[in-house]
Amino acid sequence: MRSLNKIEAHPIGFVRRQHPNQDINDRNLVSKIIILKEYLAGLDGIEDWSHLYVIFWMHLILEEKKSLVCPRSEPDIPAVGIFATRAPIRPNPFGLTLVELMRRKGNVLIVKGLDALNGTPVLDIKPYPYWVKGRWIVVTNYKAPAYFNRINK
Amino acid sequence: MRSLNKIEAHPIGFVRRQHPNQDINDRNLVSKIIILKEYLAGLDGIEDWSHLYVIFWMHLILEEKKSLVCPRSEPDIPAVGIFATRAPIRPNPFGLTLVELMRRKGNVLIVKGLDALNGTPVLDIKPYPYWVKGRWIVVTNYKAPAYFNRINK
Repeated sequence: MRSLNKIEAHPIGFVRRQHPNQDINDRNLVSKIIILKEYLAGLDGIEDWSHLYVIFWMHLILEEKKSLVCPRSEPDIPAVGIFATRAPIRPNPFGLTLVELMRRKGNVLIVKGLDALNGTPVLDIKPYPYWVKGRWIVVTNYKAPAYFNRINK
Repeated sequence: MRSLNKIEAHPIGFVRRQHPNQDINDRNLVSKIIILKEYLAGLDGIEDWSHLYVIFWMHLILEEKKSLVCPRSEPDIPAVGIFATRAPIRPNPFGLTLVELMRRKGNVLIVKGLDALNGTPVLDIKPYPYWVKGRWIVVTNYKAPAYFNRINK
């Protein structure tokens, strides 16, 4: 096997918002993803999908903030391993969000529900849902931690 | 804004299969993800989730194979931009797959449905589904391209 101690990736675009201080956890927040001109051809046909996965790089997470454990403020909630959470303070600060594609204008994607800060580098975009051998994979039968179901109403 | 022409990430583990030549597009294929010992604490509590997103690096995609357009072999299917497909020949060869967590044994995750080759570096693992402000985001109302619905039965 090849030794692969590090991988290098390059932004394909950046998140841009007119009002940079909006609440990124507002699921109705509208964002622009400005795709670099050199990747424009990669967007052909993307408007035929209503939802997209956006993989981004949480560039403001400092090295010293990364953690293997996500502490919880609520007394009910245990501290859990970082891979059991979406917390940004992870070893590789990749963000992954499922967004709604509202429209495309040239190299600009206008999306709803992207919880990435203004200026965030975008690394990849993939259509939703996922498919295998012509079958859509949409998982509605899942198990989440009991403590989580307590806070989710 | 910070200049971010490249990002560097590090594997948190690797995909291991006993029989390396199995069909990775078999949704029932079982794989091991061997998490590096230094990231073990990050797995605490992960077994409380039934499904996980795995972000991996398709390390065998050669620089000269990367493409902005995904050609299609079937006559019905148009060539489309790479970001409108899951094809591996992308500018940044990230893989993203939703898998079922069957069990965890220490630093080993045994998962079903991972379409990554044996030896693939794993970069991040996140629980499914995605949530925002205590609300689960499970999208079942989506639009896919008409040509795609033709091949999906």
